[in-house]
Amino acid sequence: MTHTIAEIANALGIAAVGDTSIRISGAAEPQSAGPGELAIAMSPKYAKRLAEGQARAALLWSDADWEALGLEAAILPTRPRFAMSGLTRMLDPGQGFATGIHPSAIVDPSAELGEAVSVGPLAIISAGARIGAGSVIGPHCFVGQGAELGKGALLREHASVGARVRAGDRFIMQPGARVGGDGFSFVTAEPSTVEAARKSLGDQGEAQSQPWIRIHTLGGVSIGDDVEIGMNSTVDCGTIRDTMIGNNTKLDNLAHLGHNVIVGDNCLLCGQVGIAGSVTIGNNVVLGGQVGVSDNIFIGDGVIAGGGTKLLSNVPAGRSMLGYPGTQMDKQMESYKALRRLPRLLKEVAELRKAVFKSSKGD
Amino acid sequence: MTHTIAEIANALGIAAVGDTSIRISGAAEPQSAGPGELAIAMSPKYAKRLAEGQARAALLWSDADWEALGLEAAILPTRPRFAMSGLTRMLDPGQGFATGIHPSAIVDPSAELGEAVSVGPLAIISAGARIGAGSVIGPHCFVGQGAELGKGALLREHASVGARVRAGDRFIMQPGARVGGDGFSFVTAEPSTVEAARKSLGDQGEAQSQPWIRIHTLGGVSIGDDVEIGMNSTVDCGTIRDTMIGNNTKLDNLAHLGHNVIVGDNCLLCGQVGIAGSVTIGNNVVLGGQVGVSDNIFIGDGVIAGGGTKLLSNVPAGRSMLGYPGTQMDKQMESYKALRRLPRLLKEVAELRKAVFKSSKGD
Amino acid sequence: MTHTIAEIANALGIAAVGDTSIRISGAAEPQSAGPGELAIAMSPKYAKRLAEGQARAALLWSDADWEALGLEAAILPTRPRFAMSGLTRMLDPGQGFATGIHPSAIVDPSAELGEAVSVGPLAIISAGARIGAGSVIGPHCFVGQGAELGKGALLREHASVGARVRAGDRFIMQPGARVGGDGFSFVTAEPSTVEAARKSLGDQGEAQSQPWIRIHTLGGVSIGDDVEIGMNSTVDCGTIRDTMIGNNTKLDNLAHLGHNVIVGDNCLLCGQVGIAGSVTIGNNVVLGGQVGVSDNIFIGDGVIAGGGTKLLSNVPAGRSMLGYPGTQMDKQMESYKALRRLPRLLKEVAELRKAVFKSSKGD
Repeated sequence: MTHTIAEIANALGIAAVGDTSIRISGAAEPQSAGPGELAIAMSPKYAKRLAEGQARAALLWSDADWEALGLEAAILPTRPRFAMSGLTRMLDPGQGFATGIHPSAIVDPSAELGEAVSVGPLAIISAGARIGAGSVIGPHCFVGQGAELGKGALLREHASVGARVRAGDRFIMQPGARVGGDGFSFVTAEPSTVEAARKSLGDQGEAQSQPWIRIHTLGGVSIGDDVEIGMNSTVDCGTIRDTMIGNNTKLDNLAHLGHNVIVGDNCLLCGQVGIAGSVTIGNNVVLGGQVGVSDNIFIGDGVIAGGGTKLLSNVPAGRSMLGYPGTQMDKQMESYKALRRLPRLLKEVAELRKAVFKSSKGD
Repeated sequence: MTHTIAEIANALGIAAVGDTSIRISGAAEPQSAGPGELAIAMSPKYAKRLAEGQARAALLWSDADWEALGLEAAILPTRPRFAMSGLTRMLDPGQGFATGIHPSAIVDPSAELGEAVSVGPLAIISAGARIGAGSVIGPHCFVGQGAELGKGALLREHASVGARVRAGDRFIMQPGARVGGDGFSFVTAEPSTVEAARKSLGDQGEAQSQPWIRIHTLGGVSIGDDVEIGMNSTVDCGTIRDTMIGNNTKLDNLAHLGHNVIVGDNCLLCGQVGIAGSVTIGNNVVLGGQVGVSDNIFIGDGVIAGGGTKLLSNVPAGRSMLGYPGTQMDKQMESYKALRRLPRLLKEVAELRKAVFKSSKGD
Repeated sequence: MTHTIAEIANALGIAAVGDTSIRISGAAEPQSAGPGELAIAMSPKYAKRLAEGQARAALLWSDADWEALGLEAAILPTRPRFAMSGLTRMLDPGQGFATGIHPSAIVDPSAELGEAVSVGPLAIISAGARIGAGSVIGPHCFVGQGAELGKGALLREHASVGARVRAGDRFIMQPGARVGGDGFSFVTAEPSTVEAARKSLGDQGEAQSQPWIRIHTLGGVSIGDDVEIGMNSTVDCGTIRDTMIGNNTKLDNLAHLGHNVIVGDNCLLCGQVGIAGSVTIGNNVVLGGQVGVSDNIFIGDGVIAGGGTKLLSNVPAGRSMLGYPGTQMDKQMESYKALRRLPRLLKEVAELRKAVFKSSKGD
């Protein structure tokens, strides 16, 4: 499918200039764009490279001098990065999953499928599952007993949803995403060394060998609208009540939510984030890649944590955090800088001791 | 299925009081429990909220004043957390996997299935595989050539077991868990820069480009009884001998065991733990979330490592560890505290230098 | 299949001594080798244990005194670790995947399969996909619309390749490996708190709640020759252009490459490595387990990062890095040592202050 510059600008509600009848078939980086592609050059840094490519039209920024860049047409958004969301939605070629229910799919007769639901080859929909209108269940996907997905779900290949999972509308699962595993919850008959070490900051008391006995998982997972779960990410069921994810929260690849976790609305959990059991996370929280959160703590609204941060205790709303253990970002930067000066400091203090205590002795 | 309070207490061997003929259909948190649910309120903190719900009966603690809490019946365990294991086992609704061999499953005629083994839709059992009595092989699961699983295995959806994997009884795999991949073992024709850097603590010598050649994986994985592998976790085969996991050891989600790793009995490896190749881990070891262990080291019996700890060298038995690099927990806490005072220390030493060396000059 | 010592030595181009007609069926560790197995004892440390086993022949090192070790034959390589690559390739029993196209596989009529491609049970090859000669597509695998794999690919069970993914020859995917998910790219209508915090090192400005809008993924993934992706690892598509992986680069298990990442040739990315979006990594880079790389930075050729390192800013070529934040390895070791002395330093400075400022007052 192709679009004219005018059609795109119109759909996005953005100003377009020049020959807006130019027709494009896709988007490309400035240096590699062909004459039928829209170059994406959202700042002067990228626009410089338009000369290396053959683009006739580009997505620029609001006051860009598009003619000086040698273009015949341009789209001039005030917030280019936001314009990208609408543009890429228009141009998305998708995965080519077929509509309808593939004959190799296994759909239990008691499952309820809404209008225009498609089920890919070798997908399984279990007894009592309910899937909202317009949903796409991809190849090799699994939807467990009684699970409920809202309207417009998209499950990519190999995604799976266990029993007792409910998700709202427009739920997206990337390939291999898993929701609904059992929680990691074990107990010993007598108090364990871990319980002792937690109480004493390290002293385990008398170590003894005890088998771990499973606490079974009776809860499920409740997921709001517009949630996305990344490739091979994992979300556990809650023990007694559901693990919960709010509206519009997005998980990147290989992220992990333990049992009983509550995540609010509008959160971004980046790649390989790990949230231990019974953590509560507010709204508008952004956790960078490989952030870890210890069990049973609270992370307030609007908290931001830089990549690799390990949050080991409660974090009040609005804080920006960094490091291990996670500390306020500005203080952590100060510590890092100080740490780099530490070897020199050791020498300086040795000199001082020599000067002071030698002179003291000399008194 | 419903149970009376008396039946539950009897099955768990725990004292029950009040009208033990009350019948419950499930468990719930105190504030949301309905009249037909058993409230779980294992400490006064949770019991406070019983008034918000409608529970007539609750699981409390041994000397709880159940009547003052407005309950008609109560179960009063001496170790409530342990009581939860038995209680949740009784109430676990499971995944609803059907018994028998689903017609869409592909079971090689040379595979040996014990009594009452069930194989879910679209599961594959390869040639020569042996599966113990009472095992449940879930939907989309894969059991490789010659793999052996003991009695009572439970493989959730999308779990896979490669060739040369043997597991004992009651083996549990959560969705997407993988055992039996090839080890990550490569070699260059001439010594590589990594070998040089390891010897010299950083100096790589003359960098040169060499392709990595695979060392193939000839070994398998040997797994004891009562082992569980979490969602999307991965366990590699050993190079020459097997990678080994002892009895009653549990892996959480997204954990990684490299080739030749040996893990002992009764260990807990929490979410996103990574164990590099050829590590040996003792018994009763507990590694918190996102702990990493460098290759070729030993972790003694009873070691506990807090979340995010990176163990870079051998750890003697019984130690509690924290931090990066992993250090004894109490020393690490001391370092963290000292580090927070470091910016002030830098100022103090600057003042001292001024005072001492100025006064020296003034002598 | 069995081999004589002479056959093996000949195939590897390595000297063999003694009764090279001895026939072996596999390899084993010295202490557990049977009489029909080749013991692997690449250094005196391992050779010591030959006496505990029954091996008649062993792979040793170039000047090993094989007769003193009680062996009847030996292979004496100058670089034993490299000899292991050839030896294990000869002895690799594989996974036993059958040749041909399994009747339960779903191969779209428009897919092009080269000569001698095998497709396992319940695998799916989508419309327009092209798979090179001699490739093995394992059980439960998925190859998306239009995806292209070169000659000699090996996809283990449950691996998946999305649309717009192209890989070169000899591509290996371990079980559950995923290539071709959508990038993790979201934008808010107005500038978000994260953008503010990044500019100000922590100050988020006025927090406000805004929904995250998806930037759709239009690009694909381009992968060179001889690349391997580990179990349950994930590689995202690029936003506009492709995410790229060079020749001969290897990813271990549970690794994550974000959208637009470029990785060069001959890199090793160990277990649970995470590379955020738009990172560029040179050639011959080795990242240890659980290394993280922040978005939009450059990692030069030949960089080596120790396990757990978090690279938060550009790294020049040739550097060896360690720690969080990642620092040159030797400086980081110095900091670690200094940090351990810090609690003592605090005491020393307190003493000094007392001595200096008390004596000052006394003047």
